[in-house]
Amino acid sequence: MRVVCLAGGVGGAKLADGLQQILASGELTVVVNTGDDFEIHSLTICPDHDTVLYTLAGIAERNQGWGLSGETWAVMGQLARLGDETWFRLGDRDLATHLFRTERLRRGDRLTDVALELARSLGVPSQVLPMTDGPVRTRVRTADGWLDFQDYFVRLHQEPDVLEVRFEGAEQAAVSPEVRDAIRSAEAIVVAPSNPIVSIGPILAVPGLLEEIAAARQRGVPSIAVSGIVGGKALRGPADRMLASLGEEPSALGVARRYVAAGLLDAFVLDRQDERLAAEVRALGLRVAATDTVMTDIESRASLARETLSAAEGATS
Amino acid sequence: MRVVCLAGGVGGAKLADGLQQILASGELTVVVNTGDDFEIHSLTICPDHDTVLYTLAGIAERNQGWGLSGETWAVMGQLARLGDETWFRLGDRDLATHLFRTERLRRGDRLTDVALELARSLGVPSQVLPMTDGPVRTRVRTADGWLDFQDYFVRLHQEPDVLEVRFEGAEQAAVSPEVRDAIRSAEAIVVAPSNPIVSIGPILAVPGLLEEIAAARQRGVPSIAVSGIVGGKALRGPADRMLASLGEEPSALGVARRYVAAGLLDAFVLDRQDERLAAEVRALGLRVAATDTVMTDIESRASLARETLSAAEGATS
Repeated sequence: MRVVCLAGGVGGAKLADGLQQILASGELTVVVNTGDDFEIHSLTICPDHDTVLYTLAGIAERNQGWGLSGETWAVMGQLARLGDETWFRLGDRDLATHLFRTERLRRGDRLTDVALELARSLGVPSQVLPMTDGPVRTRVRTADGWLDFQDYFVRLHQEPDVLEVRFEGAEQAAVSPEVRDAIRSAEAIVVAPSNPIVSIGPILAVPGLLEEIAAARQRGVPSIAVSGIVGGKALRGPADRMLASLGEEPSALGVARRYVAAGLLDAFVLDRQDERLAAEVRALGLRVAATDTVMTDIESRASLARETLSAAEGATS
Repeated sequence: MRVVCLAGGVGGAKLADGLQQILASGELTVVVNTGDDFEIHSLTICPDHDTVLYTLAGIAERNQGWGLSGETWAVMGQLARLGDETWFRLGDRDLATHLFRTERLRRGDRLTDVALELARSLGVPSQVLPMTDGPVRTRVRTADGWLDFQDYFVRLHQEPDVLEVRFEGAEQAAVSPEVRDAIRSAEAIVVAPSNPIVSIGPILAVPGLLEEIAAARQRGVPSIAVSGIVGGKALRGPADRMLASLGEEPSALGVARRYVAAGLLDAFVLDRQDERLAAEVRALGLRVAATDTVMTDIESRASLARETLSAAEGATS
């Protein structure tokens, strides 16, 4: 079963890993958010892409949710000694990825080609595709004005309230041939339990991408999302507070409403804790499945992936 | 006593360290070759500058002649796993220097400003100045055609014979205000025992630099070189073979002839082993001192520096 999974960082990476576990080799394509990509130390960093890549390669650090397991920090330590910025922590082996990518981008390679090459080198059996090749940069407006995403997310620890979000460059972005082909040959679309605003939002902002998903759905391909908000709290990150400060409901229902408004979905997976919201989500026109959505170990990733695909199939039956 | 030392990599770094040991803080300015600078992994690497910097900071690896002591190789190991080039070995802490430099150059800082900032961060009491801010790239012609310097030097282990040398960009280069001021206030000019062709050669090719030295000499400031060729052999690197393949004499005399032809020198230091060449060097119009020039430990660096400065002073008496 060929599956396209739209994903941000940690939550997206975990569900993608679950899907990779249960699908045949090559059947999974993950389309990752590039809105939080940025430049530091003259390198192009793609945090969500790399989290998904490392997770699918089995080399991600499990506890902190980013970077590589068994990482060392010699470069960062020396950068500190030189008086350089160290608020965005880059491990030694992680830096190899950024050096590899940055050089190829400077040569003129597409971000997608770099991603395919990295996945091949790390033996990843799935495709991990940037949502687009062009630069898209998420910015958030706070009481102090507009901030670059990583300034808000890492440097300021997501403390300020987000009053507005924009995806700079999205209007000029285009769906890559690889993303288009993956959606056209998909048998299910899965929206991972990532932040709906700043992880899935930028992906949906790439012109033509929602249209490709709409066309797939018209062919009978189910599109299903898993809520990343459980019991009114984001499993990780600021999605709950962001929904609230943007005037939306900080719950699985709020997530479902967003996706329905975008014309994205046929079905929705929420956590058992949120079963009381099922009727309201159904009222949005969605099939609903309730299950355990909190992925605490490798096995729970696979079982959530299995439940999600079976709910997706139910959605078209 | 304010001293300007023209230097390439290892030999230059050692004599510079000797000078730094015996001079008061701030009295030494090292003008380093940038002709072997190059770009790899999207970073700007300045091998001679960094060898001098690390040596003067007391953090250089002593045996291999480049890089940092106690270095680790995590980034390089991962780059290899990604299938990237690894023929030019960059240690983890060394990479911090290149990241620091590259970002600042991209921002528009001058190479000189970056060098001053690096030296300050590492607590180096001397000035380590790139010979110029503009890009100069040494290329060598071999039987197989023109090669980038590091291709020849590192990747091909200096195996091909060098038939011709050029310093691309030198004609457009300019003496920086810092180098000019250092020469103008110098009380002695020391040419380190570096490769006369590809380490000192590019420095002398910067338009205006030889004129500044000539003006200093007219003011009575002595200019003295130490031979890097002892007993017909380069202490390190291919200088002997390079002199031979360019049709010059591969000896201390050949080195002295080059510098006299450039109008650079008042005096010359050769090794005791080469005392039989002293008369011929003297016949070039130079004062000659013979001493132990092979710097095998920290103390021998200081004593060669001391001998060199006293020979320089003798040269004008």
